[in-house]
Amino acid sequence: MDQKTRFDAAFSAQLDALRAEGNYRWFANLERHAGDFPRATRRHAGGQGDVTVWCSNDYLGMGQHPAVAEAMKAAIDSCGAGAGGTRNISGTNVHHVELERELADLHGKEAALLFTSGYVSNWATLSTLGARLPGCVILSDALNHASMIEGVRHSRAEKRIWKHNDLADLERQLASIEPGRPKLIAFESVYSMDGDIAPIREICDLADRYGAMTYLDEVHAVGLYGPRGGGVAEREGLMDRITVIEGTLGKAFGVVGGYIAASAAVCDFVRSFASGFIFTTSLPPAVAAGACVSIRHLKESDAERLAQRRAVALLRARLDRLGIPHLPNPSHIVPVMVKDPVKCKLLSDILLDEHGIYVQPINYPTVPKGTERLRFTPSPLHSEADIDRLASALHGLWSQCALARAAA
Amino acid sequence: MDQKTRFDAAFSAQLDALRAEGNYRWFANLERHAGDFPRATRRHAGGQGDVTVWCSNDYLGMGQHPAVAEAMKAAIDSCGAGAGGTRNISGTNVHHVELERELADLHGKEAALLFTSGYVSNWATLSTLGARLPGCVILSDALNHASMIEGVRHSRAEKRIWKHNDLADLERQLASIEPGRPKLIAFESVYSMDGDIAPIREICDLADRYGAMTYLDEVHAVGLYGPRGGGVAEREGLMDRITVIEGTLGKAFGVVGGYIAASAAVCDFVRSFASGFIFTTSLPPAVAAGACVSIRHLKESDAERLAQRRAVALLRARLDRLGIPHLPNPSHIVPVMVKDPVKCKLLSDILLDEHGIYVQPINYPTVPKGTERLRFTPSPLHSEADIDRLASALHGLWSQCALARAAA
Ligand SMILES: Cc1ncc(COP(=O)(O)O)c(C=O)c1O
Ligand SMILES: Cc1ncc(COP(=O)(O)O)c(C=O)c1O
Repeated sequence: MDQKTRFDAAFSAQLDALRAEGNYRWFANLERHAGDFPRATRRHAGGQGDVTVWCSNDYLGMGQHPAVAEAMKAAIDSCGAGAGGTRNISGTNVHHVELERELADLHGKEAALLFTSGYVSNWATLSTLGARLPGCVILSDALNHASMIEGVRHSRAEKRIWKHNDLADLERQLASIEPGRPKLIAFESVYSMDGDIAPIREICDLADRYGAMTYLDEVHAVGLYGPRGGGVAEREGLMDRITVIEGTLGKAFGVVGGYIAASAAVCDFVRSFASGFIFTTSLPPAVAAGACVSIRHLKESDAERLAQRRAVALLRARLDRLGIPHLPNPSHIVPVMVKDPVKCKLLSDILLDEHGIYVQPINYPTVPKGTERLRFTPSPLHSEADIDRLASALHGLWSQCALARAAA
Repeated sequence: MDQKTRFDAAFSAQLDALRAEGNYRWFANLERHAGDFPRATRRHAGGQGDVTVWCSNDYLGMGQHPAVAEAMKAAIDSCGAGAGGTRNISGTNVHHVELERELADLHGKEAALLFTSGYVSNWATLSTLGARLPGCVILSDALNHASMIEGVRHSRAEKRIWKHNDLADLERQLASIEPGRPKLIAFESVYSMDGDIAPIREICDLADRYGAMTYLDEVHAVGLYGPRGGGVAEREGLMDRITVIEGTLGKAFGVVGGYIAASAAVCDFVRSFASGFIFTTSLPPAVAAGACVSIRHLKESDAERLAQRRAVALLRARLDRLGIPHLPNPSHIVPVMVKDPVKCKLLSDILLDEHGIYVQPINYPTVPKGTERLRFTPSPLHSEADIDRLASALHGLWSQCALARAAA
């Protein structure tokens, strides 16, 4: 056996284990059609076909908004394709500066800082704060996103995991930490897989009581909640009580990239010390320009948010009528629980192959084993007919596969 | 003092320390003009002015190539602004699939895997390999890039740092590791700050002798070296001896993004287990489309590489004639050593304000303290007149500031 074969055998063994438990992932190859979302062309070994996408995180369809596309194309024409450098070495463009100003304004903060993704913004910010504040303790919600977990881990700061959205557990842990130590409570507003929302006000109250900083991931909320799309903290009037608000430009804003908004001192600190911010090519000016237009649009316009809410309510009503069980929650996410990775993949395959409905099975490691689900994200672009088609397809499947109905 | 003021004070103290040592960074706000690189407009407090950019890593000017811009704009028109999801959940587009095929072909590998940046590709791949290969030891060159260092650190695998480009030290360390343990040698081809090149063949020989895998960062070489722009390993006929080749789409290819090229098993392994690959919105289809065209162009065309080499040789000849000391090296990078952060910033300021020449001072943490420098990257777009202007500006500065000349 040559070296390559020997190395590859080690990798293949672990992949085989994934396959055996039903958690191996196949990516659907999709071509979304601007102007025709949620429709896409799916390519596969046997050819191609039209599908309706039901699991995109381009929640409001801003990815096909003509003003966003125009801004991007204009920036490509004027500034070129890429930024040409890291932020410090020739890679700061007027569009980055403008976008950071726009984001600071969105969240009512002194400053904002751009990253190449929401993942990197969480990882880089938490790892820098945790590593550079001597004695810092990070109190992390048990269901925080992988990017926050990795950031906390990378910081090597002391970590306390508190039970998901559990104020009593958070307080117990805060109370047990020596009063003089810097403390940072890290949590999300909308948890993307269950769609539940954190008690932000009460967490801020605890933070005040124990002198802790707060770090809020609003990745699944920016653009979607609050009168200007500032997120759940904007809706509740709490933005000024959060030390660091983190968000993405890749979901409701429809483009790509991530950011934090915070005091000038915090942003300057992360800008100056975070490896994941410093040592990487900055986002293309065109991406920044497109995101800027998207944010501005959603600051002014409520139409997309209202239409999305209507679609969400309609899908839930249809599922309820047919007894298809879904997790109740106060957000825009509709999780239909299957609780088995193989069955989850099977349902998704049938929806795709027989109904042209694309919803990716959500399996481990995205959700804990045993909580596998189909996660639907109705958008302003899903019509009543789309929703009816989805509900009736699920209805048929539930009978066909003898799946449990929700109690009436 | 309220909470916010108190928190901010902690951050400001560390920023003050940076300022005191001359390492605080100001970003130049630039607007590059497509069609007119290396020219850009710089905005500053006092207004704006035209500059010639001398420190971009868009090494070949592909960021303004019309075919790249056209491909990006066409993809925005057809597929929209963003990908709309992670690779697994609705975010794999036909352009991602095509680009991965193109990259695998570029490096003569079975497969390739895209990441949001070169930083993330290094960090995610090394942290996954190191964490998931039981007993793995990573042998890391002492001057490896921050993204590799952070990846190795994050993996928590045993780490051995070998002296930069020192085969004897590498061999000594390889020999000291128990033979049965998985070993991975991580290094770069072109080191971007000194411009020196690793002895890749000899490192591969050692890897064979000791049964180690090899991980090669070609970020500053892809597009630039080798008959098809496959990097230094392509030029030397060594691509098949490297286990993982890592590269960026944000430097010579002119766009943004990162990747690895390797065996199908390695790519599938990283795809399946790397948090930094899985849990993040994928690159916009337009970015993938633009990068694909750029790579294809540089596979066919040598003109950009030849013109760059001419510009590099010309600048070096001018500097030599004037006795401006620069680090000799076999690559396209021309570092002029200043060895003091305050002086380095001062020179850069004068070049900018009095000569319209933009070269960012390279200070800590990008290079070790005491090795501060001006790092010039001549491109095919810098004319002989540009080079003359730069050389004569440096000549004047060297006299004005009584800086040491190189020995004749
Ligand atoms: C809660 C949360 N935070 C951060 C991220 C990362 O954001 P991005 O996709 O911009 O990398 C995601 C998902 O991708 C997420 O679900
Ligand atoms: C050696 C090296 N590797 C990786 C990177 C990161 O690549 P990217 O800019 O695509 O994140 C850089 C610079 O940015 C680098 O110099």
